[in-house]
Amino acid sequence: MLKNDIFLRALEGEALDRPPVWMMRQAGRYLPDFMKLKAKYDFFTRCQTPELAAAITVMPIDQVGTDAAILFSDILVIPQAMDITVEMKNGVGPWLPNPVRTAEDLAKVIVPDVEDRLHYVMEAIKQTKILLDDRVPLIGFAGSPWTILCYAVQGQGSKNFDLAKGFCFSQPALAHELLQKITDTTIAYLKAKVRAGVDAVQLFDSWGGMLGEEDYQTFSWQYMQQIIDALKDETKVIAFAKGCWYALPIMARSGAHALGVDWTCSARNARYLSGGQIPLQGNFDPSRLLSPIPEIEKLAHKMVSEFGTQNYIANLGHGILPNVPVDHAKAFVNAIKSYNS
Amino acid sequence: MLKNDIFLRALEGEALDRPPVWMMRQAGRYLPDFMKLKAKYDFFTRCQTPELAAAITVMPIDQVGTDAAILFSDILVIPQAMDITVEMKNGVGPWLPNPVRTAEDLAKVIVPDVEDRLHYVMEAIKQTKILLDDRVPLIGFAGSPWTILCYAVQGQGSKNFDLAKGFCFSQPALAHELLQKITDTTIAYLKAKVRAGVDAVQLFDSWGGMLGEEDYQTFSWQYMQQIIDALKDETKVIAFAKGCWYALPIMARSGAHALGVDWTCSARNARYLSGGQIPLQGNFDPSRLLSPIPEIEKLAHKMVSEFGTQNYIANLGHGILPNVPVDHAKAFVNAIKSYNS
Repeated sequence: MLKNDIFLRALEGEALDRPPVWMMRQAGRYLPDFMKLKAKYDFFTRCQTPELAAAITVMPIDQVGTDAAILFSDILVIPQAMDITVEMKNGVGPWLPNPVRTAEDLAKVIVPDVEDRLHYVMEAIKQTKILLDDRVPLIGFAGSPWTILCYAVQGQGSKNFDLAKGFCFSQPALAHELLQKITDTTIAYLKAKVRAGVDAVQLFDSWGGMLGEEDYQTFSWQYMQQIIDALKDETKVIAFAKGCWYALPIMARSGAHALGVDWTCSARNARYLSGGQIPLQGNFDPSRLLSPIPEIEKLAHKMVSEFGTQNYIANLGHGILPNVPVDHAKAFVNAIKSYNS
Repeated sequence: MLKNDIFLRALEGEALDRPPVWMMRQAGRYLPDFMKLKAKYDFFTRCQTPELAAAITVMPIDQVGTDAAILFSDILVIPQAMDITVEMKNGVGPWLPNPVRTAEDLAKVIVPDVEDRLHYVMEAIKQTKILLDDRVPLIGFAGSPWTILCYAVQGQGSKNFDLAKGFCFSQPALAHELLQKITDTTIAYLKAKVRAGVDAVQLFDSWGGMLGEEDYQTFSWQYMQQIIDALKDETKVIAFAKGCWYALPIMARSGAHALGVDWTCSARNARYLSGGQIPLQGNFDPSRLLSPIPEIEKLAHKMVSEFGTQNYIANLGHGILPNVPVDHAKAFVNAIKSYNS
């Protein structure tokens, strides 16, 4: 029995006095204790050592007081498990030295046995559950197939993922083959996470907003839908597609239990586009946590008053930034928790 | 008398058999002749030498056949004229070694005499008009104050302009002072361009979409509106704010003669949000020019059929990419020109 299950109750559509709150990337670089571990262990060591991942995952529960934990990991563990080399390069970020751009490249990409290749994730979930001790639910996550393709083809982050999009538009058959391989891997991965103990999963389509409405359906959403179909009866599924306000109408009919929205889509627009019933999650501008604390509190309350306390999970509109003072993050979380309609 | 004035007639709302077409960044790196000049002259030499800027400006008229020319220049000539050092760094792009982040930094930023500091732009316009020989109209442009602030504060391009946003949210008074200085400079600059002979101006708010709806009004749109107010009786004004679909309702009431839209906002959504009457410009996904030519033609015709031939200017949804084959750009332009409703 969870001591604090407000996050899961919001996903059920229960009437609540205040919304639950968590923050994307809450187990991250704005936390001094995270930075201490970062100084000692490199990125992959942190991801692949269950004790470290579990310790990082519970930091924001202990130190910031969010209503849900999200497993410390990375969306790029999936391409890595598919035999696409992923490195972290100083000053660049993710670096994939052998990007997938030809049929020959694609032939080398495997659909792995995730219980084997990503065993460390499942072990991290089990250790996290022990540390959490039923205080709050645990969220697992994966990148969308499109977002993983973006990195796999581009080879690194990008302002416009021109190479990834060029690959899709000039070699669509190869693109769909890669997307299906990622989808199959992701479904197996998320099912394994559910078996290992996560209470909900979130799909991050971080780069969906690079695509127009029809291309989004073709190259991203149809694969997101496959994943939702495969998971929705086993766990709660939250779909977050940054910049994809135009897709909210179809996302709302997908069977997902909640939809994430970013800060460019107002509560009014998000409720209108999603039909008004499905739980929404978001959408505080992460940069707004750099405002003075009284302004953070004012804006957080305003956000809740606009989304309403029902069918709503308070969150940021994207990941928390490394330069946010912990006190500002706490002020945001406490402002939501003290909301009084 | 212009030989081809279809672009200006579309801005007047005239009924036309097919829309005019031009491409953002059409005088750019996808053109082999441009690359030859790029190999010989550095970025600032190309911008600041009227003969070179004029020669580059007319290249797409001669070689691709667009219905309007847009002066070869850069939005960062404005901060440069305001005594903010701007460099071009290999592999980085724009590089501003002394970003504006404090009151002391801001005090050094001047509102220049643009006829003096940007004399080379006015001279380039005059020389371009000679080369154009009244074949097509000439568009002048400027970045939005917000977009210029993004570079001036961040110091370089960025995925999220976190430092620029942090500056605005933590030191709003300084931000507004900087925005007003940029606005005053931009108004004088665009008025000088009109006197020098441009037939229309476009405001590029390339990074407006980094802001939520209310912050967009506060930190970007109010300054765009000042510029539109100052220019709209002297020339045609096109306002393009990438990612700012949510601002289309207010933009449509601004007095601007046309609004640019990017490819994430469908024709249906753009017409709905803008009220259905104001000329719209856009919105082909630049990466879609990497598709095979028959698909480019099909998608270009589909775009026109969705926007309609009236109150519409065909364009890309952002700048053309350097890796687009010239034949693909020509196929796009010709598909629009051959559109038969």
